[in-house]
Formats: sequence, structure tokens, C-alpha cells
Amino acid sequence: MAAQPDTAALDRLIAERLDALLPQKLAELRAAKTPSMTIISTKGTLDWAYPPFILASTAGAMGWDVSMFFTFYGLGLLRKDISDLKVSPLGNPGMPMKMPFGPDWFKGINWNIPNAVQAIVPGFETMATALMKQTIQNKGVAGVAELREACIEGGVKLIGCQMTVDLFGYTRDDFIPEVKEYCGAAHFLPMARDADVSLFI
Amino acid sequence: MAAQPDTAALDRLIAERLDALLPQKLAELRAAKTPSMTIISTKGTLDWAYPPFILASTAGAMGWDVSMFFTFYGLGLLRKDISDLKVSPLGNPGMPMKMPFGPDWFKGINWNIPNAVQAIVPGFETMATALMKQTIQNKGVAGVAELREACIEGGVKLIGCQMTVDLFGYTRDDFIPEVKEYCGAAHFLPMARDADVSLFI
Amino acid sequence: MAAQPDTAALDRLIAERLDALLPQKLAELRAAKTPSMTIISTKGTLDWAYPPFILASTAGAMGWDVSMFFTFYGLGLLRKDISDLKVSPLGNPGMPMKMPFGPDWFKGINWNIPNAVQAIVPGFETMATALMKQTIQNKGVAGVAELREACIEGGVKLIGCQMTVDLFGYTRDDFIPEVKEYCGAAHFLPMARDADVSLFI
Repeated sequence: MAAQPDTAALDRLIAERLDALLPQKLAELRAAKTPSMTIISTKGTLDWAYPPFILASTAGAMGWDVSMFFTFYGLGLLRKDISDLKVSPLGNPGMPMKMPFGPDWFKGINWNIPNAVQAIVPGFETMATALMKQTIQNKGVAGVAELREACIEGGVKLIGCQMTVDLFGYTRDDFIPEVKEYCGAAHFLPMARDADVSLFI
Repeated sequence: MAAQPDTAALDRLIAERLDALLPQKLAELRAAKTPSMTIISTKGTLDWAYPPFILASTAGAMGWDVSMFFTFYGLGLLRKDISDLKVSPLGNPGMPMKMPFGPDWFKGINWNIPNAVQAIVPGFETMATALMKQTIQNKGVAGVAELREACIEGGVKLIGCQMTVDLFGYTRDDFIPEVKEYCGAAHFLPMARDADVSLFI
Repeated sequence: MAAQPDTAALDRLIAERLDALLPQKLAELRAAKTPSMTIISTKGTLDWAYPPFILASTAGAMGWDVSMFFTFYGLGLLRKDISDLKVSPLGNPGMPMKMPFGPDWFKGINWNIPNAVQAIVPGFETMATALMKQTIQNKGVAGVAELREACIEGGVKLIGCQMTVDLFGYTRDDFIPEVKEYCGAAHFLPMARDADVSLFI
């Protein structure tokens, strides 16, 4: 027959053990959990396509659960052909790009010329885009389409914002078939809540 | 009279039960907690006013605790009259806006014309703003002032950055009376720490 | 000799005590933990240098563990001399800067003139930068270099993105010696996961 335990003593013991064990148990639970990240991808230029795709493909390759929500200008990054992405140094005096080819003296030239000149030179944006693509290629950095492919291979979930599809006059057929889900903020927010890291890019 | 428990056996038992019960108890605690989000809203243009207000009003409608900290250019979103917000396609070649009216061939035109042309056409920004407003209205998407109102109705806490008020020469009278609190980063950071999701927009 | 405890009764007791104690124990653990923040700093202009340095220096002064990852255009903020940072109102119609000196009627002038004028006035960016610096100084707000110094004094960890160093043709000698670490996204993501707050700026 079981003895009656001393409840007060047991309470104290349980509280003590909890103090002693909880940090370790929580750390174990955390270590056992797959890390997760959600990214709200809102920009549609060549340069700003890099941060979300680099972060997501890296996390995907590390085995993280990653969901990307493409909304606003970022939705364009899900189009079938994204070879037309452009970069504009206009209004971004922080862009420190140097000439990607030519003799050394030429390579030292920062091609982010003043806005006053950029704005009146037809095709400056096209030239800036070509120069950035060349720089990226010279340095062995992957292109945006390749990084998107790496995201898909790494199991990153690509989600389109349905409101933006409607607002910008897209149809779902404009996007790659790997986009399995279209939803709105109400559906996305709980994913962000559950994630270890959530970034608005 | 209470029996003396076998401490070592009890320790093992408590550790075992903790292993078995902790994940479920943590999930219960989490489910019982109101989700929360903080948003640092830093941009003051018509287009970039949408993401913070859409995310916050959606979360508010879902019963989340939401605090928005309006700082830098974002502070202007708290002004009484925000009908003057503008959008500029300059320096944003990722803006895919199509003509919001007219015959079909006209609607297919992407009005994000090259910077070289934009920059020298007086009033281009005004035209772009009008076209975007028309597109938004055509699609039945709420205006920025309505979304801000929805935030207020959903219990979203609107907080102004006092340093920005001073820096940009505003007075508190410039802002809607629903802004109950003005503070700085030191006051806001602990709110971000406590939130499930924190976004810098 | 120890009595044999009633296992089922003990299980119930342990579950009950866990329910009662867990919220408080978790709160205690949390209160005992140093708050932490990671910031991904991606922009390189004078105005956008403020948010990461203000948030990081404030958190550092409050005793938080803060790590800043400088990547893309943000890497330039780690250069030895950052007195050349510029601001451009081009493409940012949300910039509400008033004249920082002169008689009252002059101070009321918003110098964010239309893009069409900005773009064709040589040196407009330089003038805008000078006016913003004057405004900042008039209001007693610290300069960017001072804020970076405050970050270092507050123990904020400054980390450079190695891929960006290569892409933009920098050498580590271009940066302040307080940058002790250069790494990539794979190294940074686990830091973000462990942090209470992670922001992409």
C-alpha cells in the first residue's frame, strides 16, 4: 500500500527541481526544434532582390523552415522571367559600385555619378543595371534567378500576396508554378508569429 | 503521519514528467497568450504607407496587441491630413503600375517611364500619385486614411517618436489625437522584445 | 527506509504544480536573461544610417547584447571616414525637411522641391546633405560617426558581410578596426534566431 506523501515537502521539491531542470529542458526543446524564418519581400529591383533570396536560400540550405511572402513590388520577383530586373542609382547616393572591367585606373571609377547627370542621360538605368550584373558575375555571385532556384531546392515556401496580384493586374499564370499558395496578411501573420525570425525586406 | 519520500526516485519521476508534460504546457501557455506585434514605421510615401497600416489593421482585427512606432519619414503618417502623400517612381524601376483607366490597349501601358523622362517632366510625381490612387480605388483597396482608421478601431497603439517630432519641426498638435504616446527608442525597445513579431518597415 | 510513493497521485501533483509554477518560472528565466537584438544594416545613405545606429546604441546603453551585420550598401557605414555620407530627396517625396536657418519665413520653406527641379540642378544632393546635417546639428542630434562610436562604447558587435566586401571591391583595411568579425548569412542567421528582436533595416 502506498504511503501518503508530505504534500508541502513535495511542492518544495517539485519547485526546486523545476528551477534546476527548466533551463536545460527548454534548451533541449529548442535544440530539437527546426529553426524557422519568414520573410516579407516587398521590393522589386535587381539589387533589393538579393537580400531576401540570399537569406532564404542560405537558411533553406541549413535546413530551416522558411516561408517568403511576396507582396507589393516584391511580387514581381515571382514572375516566370526575372531577367528584366533593373537597378537605379537615382536617389541612392549610398551605392558604391566600381567599374567592373577595363584597366586598373578605369576600375577605380565609381560609376554612381550625380543625380543631375544620371537623370538627363537616357539609358543610364540600363547601363547601371548592366554594370551591376557584370560586377556580380565577375565576383562569382549567383544571379537572382539562380538564387530563387536555390530557394526552391532548399524547400523554401514561396507565397504570393493575392491583393497585390489583383492590384497590379497580374494573373497567377504570370508566376512560376512553384508558387503553390496565394494569401493575404491574415493568413501570413500567424506564420510570422510562429517563426524564430521574421524580417520585412 | 507522512512518509519520507525517496528523494532520488522522486527526482527521476519529476524529470520524467517534465519531459513528458513541458511541450504541451508550453503550447497551452502560448495558445492562451494574445499574439503581439510591434512595427517601426519609417517611410512617408503613399506606397510605403500601405504595408505598416495593412499589417497592423489586419493584426488588430484578429485581436492581436499591436504597437506602431512612427519615426523618421514615417512620422508624417500620423498627421491630421494625409491626403497629400505622394508616390515617386523615380529610383524605383521595380514599380509595375499600369494605366488605371481607358480602353484596353491603354490599360496595358506601364506608366513607370524611364527616369530620364520622369525627371524632366514637371508634375510627373503628381501624375504618378494620381494614377496610383486611381488604381487603388479601382481595385477596391482602402485608402491610407481609412486603413489608419481601421488600425485605431482595432485597438492598435499609435506611438510617435519624440526625437523626430523635434528634428522635423513638428508640434504634437500636427498629429491626430489618437496618438496618446510620444517616446524614444529606449521606451520602445522593451515593447519589441516582448512582441512575437517585430518589423522595421 | 523510504516509503513507496503513489505514482499516479504524484503524477497529478507534478502536473498541477507545473501548471501553477511554469508561467512564473518562465518569467523569472526571461527576466534573468540579457535582452538581445540583431540588426541587418543594408543602407548606405546619411538618413538611413540613423535608424540602425540609434536603435543599436540605445539598446547597447541599456545593457542589451546587440550584433549588427553590415551588408550591401550598409557595409559602407563601417568605413573609417563616413563624413561623406549623402542624402537624396530624389524619389523620396516623404522627406519633410525645412530650412535649418535664416529668418522665420525662410525656415518655413520645405526644401524638398519637385524631382523635376532637383534632377537638373547640379549639386542639389550636396545641398540637401548640407541642409540635413545643419538641421541635425541645430536639434542637438548626434552625428552618424558619434552614434557609431556610442555603439562601440556600448559593446555593440559590428560584423561585416564578407561577400559584400568582395562584391564592392573593398579591403578590410577600409574599415574601422573595431570590426572584429567578417562573415556571411550562414553565420549570422543563428545569431538572429537566438535574439529577442531581429530587424532588417
